[in-house]
Amino acid sequence: MSLESMTAPAAPPQPSFAEALRREAREAPESGIVEVMNYGRRRGGVTPLWAGEGDTPTPAFIAEAATRALAAGETFYTWQRGIPELRESLARYHGRIFGRAFSPEEFFITGSGMQAIAIALALVAGSGDEVVIPTPAWPNAAAATGVIGARAVEVPMILANDGWSLDLERVAAAITSRSRALVLVSPSNPTGWTATREELRAILALARKHGLWIIADETYARFWYGEGDRAPSFLDVMEAEDRVLFVNTFSKNWAMTGWRIGWIVAHPALGQVIENLIQYATSGVAQFMQRAGVAAIEHGEGFVAHQIARARRGRDIMANALAATGRCRFALPIGAFYLFFTVDGETDTRRLALRLIDEASVGLAPGTAFGKGGENYLRACFLRDPEQLEAAAQRLVGVLTRR
Amino acid sequence: MSLESMTAPAAPPQPSFAEALRREAREAPESGIVEVMNYGRRRGGVTPLWAGEGDTPTPAFIAEAATRALAAGETFYTWQRGIPELRESLARYHGRIFGRAFSPEEFFITGSGMQAIAIALALVAGSGDEVVIPTPAWPNAAAATGVIGARAVEVPMILANDGWSLDLERVAAAITSRSRALVLVSPSNPTGWTATREELRAILALARKHGLWIIADETYARFWYGEGDRAPSFLDVMEAEDRVLFVNTFSKNWAMTGWRIGWIVAHPALGQVIENLIQYATSGVAQFMQRAGVAAIEHGEGFVAHQIARARRGRDIMANALAATGRCRFALPIGAFYLFFTVDGETDTRRLALRLIDEASVGLAPGTAFGKGGENYLRACFLRDPEQLEAAAQRLVGVLTRR
Repeated sequence: MSLESMTAPAAPPQPSFAEALRREAREAPESGIVEVMNYGRRRGGVTPLWAGEGDTPTPAFIAEAATRALAAGETFYTWQRGIPELRESLARYHGRIFGRAFSPEEFFITGSGMQAIAIALALVAGSGDEVVIPTPAWPNAAAATGVIGARAVEVPMILANDGWSLDLERVAAAITSRSRALVLVSPSNPTGWTATREELRAILALARKHGLWIIADETYARFWYGEGDRAPSFLDVMEAEDRVLFVNTFSKNWAMTGWRIGWIVAHPALGQVIENLIQYATSGVAQFMQRAGVAAIEHGEGFVAHQIARARRGRDIMANALAATGRCRFALPIGAFYLFFTVDGETDTRRLALRLIDEASVGLAPGTAFGKGGENYLRACFLRDPEQLEAAAQRLVGVLTRR
Repeated sequence: MSLESMTAPAAPPQPSFAEALRREAREAPESGIVEVMNYGRRRGGVTPLWAGEGDTPTPAFIAEAATRALAAGETFYTWQRGIPELRESLARYHGRIFGRAFSPEEFFITGSGMQAIAIALALVAGSGDEVVIPTPAWPNAAAATGVIGARAVEVPMILANDGWSLDLERVAAAITSRSRALVLVSPSNPTGWTATREELRAILALARKHGLWIIADETYARFWYGEGDRAPSFLDVMEAEDRVLFVNTFSKNWAMTGWRIGWIVAHPALGQVIENLIQYATSGVAQFMQRAGVAAIEHGEGFVAHQIARARRGRDIMANALAATGRCRFALPIGAFYLFFTVDGETDTRRLALRLIDEASVGLAPGTAFGKGGENYLRACFLRDPEQLEAAAQRLVGVLTRR
């Protein structure tokens, strides 16, 4: 010990930084997906099926719309709800997809689908409130619920022989006097489960009965392998005055994951409140990004069709390969672009995901990231080049069938 | 009345949407600046001095960095804390400006300066807590405090003959057992008041004594008309372990207001918690935007110098013109780029701002937007082409001296 350190005056007792933080901030969970991604990125050469994105960069016609707007100097503050042109495009797009008229006043541009969820939650829930969330589910809605001081109440779904199912009696049993909202992701990330119109009607009836808001995440509505052009939607069964907030994103349909641009669909009566929450969260979305959004919607149908066809083929590649192992159990997803599967005899999926990076050079998301009922699963994103996906699937098979 | 409407079953009693929202969301105030902007935009032909932005679009060398990254396909999910290159650039930049070494681990990229504030607040304050905010101040920090269920406690500053001043005894008197943080914007938007090193030391001592966090908004540090190259900073007087969170933005120095990109400087021990809050707010900032941030920092010093010189000249134009009216009272700002002034005999500044749009074709922000002590003022942004600014100032003089 040096003289200085012996004679220096004692520092005042300093509680750790962590203790000085708000509890809900401190306790926000680290993303269980990001941990695996960071491990794999450091290792290199891994086929990344861990994240919810494909391998295609944003199409040039979309990126170039942003580039043109940038070159034209569209770099100033803009409308907090989004530029009128994008809100009009979204209204027309919803009209085409859902077969009825929409008003631009129902649309609000957000800085990602994640922000759409965070704002929807902040609209309706706060400290001491509860939000009901069927799981397995993409973890961010539950975590964002925690950040605002509310409690996510998970309702585990069940995988039986005929696929995943949501037990409405369990949902009803999870509702208390503190419940304010129910978050439903349909088609589901990660399971691919998709509510039928009858289920949507029943969930809506439950929400009406208890005065709950529904936060409807229908991001994957067009990645749909069942009958018809898209998955069933609350838009098919609700009335205009129902308490439903839709959250969505440009990320998946148009390969814009990295852009951070999404939208909310809500009753126009909520417009000023939503605008205010956008103002005090990020104060809007760059105008040049929104121009890219307009290009995506107005000229992107061919690309979306290509994405969907690719996902359908990817689904079959992954499903066939994993079925051939004789060790994997899963429901063939009817929507979204993930295969969510267990491996016989493997219960520590975080460790298994790390091992598959090392031994198969394939990056999967561990089910531990997806809440109750998902712990024993792995999630593989199959929106990817078929040849590369086939090769990755065969490497997975190789490791999983090695005895 | 038609037969249908007479005989239709009564709709179930439906509480209004507004009542069904969380109180804190419902009560988030509409921006008092946006109201005037929307009025003026509809009228057209108005010189817009209402917002906190200049008239220069983002320089081409910055926009082109984003364009190149877009063309190179940098459109995927990326690091939640920001890309390493931008965090390294920011560390070097701070080293140059503040004359000591910084680590990239101290920097966190956010989706706007506004998001930096929102995340800093969420780190330390929640339901039932209080946040002390000297006013007049840009309203968004107080509003964001309300959104998360905490209470903004305003401490009105005073304009005396020797300029604006912050009474530290009033700050001390505002601190209660519920206080968690103090938000200090220095140089101040809107008054231009800037804390001296001695005042910063005194505020830090107060924060240490009460275990408060300081949220230091030093966005305008380089728009500084006093001695030295920049305004005094908490970085000059603090220890590494002090509870100070810096919030900043690319908006002002580099004319990137519309981009929505900012940063937090914080102790690396807070890194994972900050990353988690970014994850559950917007999940990061587009990689191609961050490339533009790198270009701004690495090649933007000439542009920043040009901006500062322009602001200095604009300050003199506005100050001279308003002084010549004989009706305006203000302190010549030593920092930032706003003139904040009263007009003798005018107390309804919202109405006056609307009248000045109609009669002088000049858009100003009403003081009502800036909290206690600012109600009787108007704010004029003077970061603008000198000729255009001179013309606008003379139109203002014309209306204000008309009897």
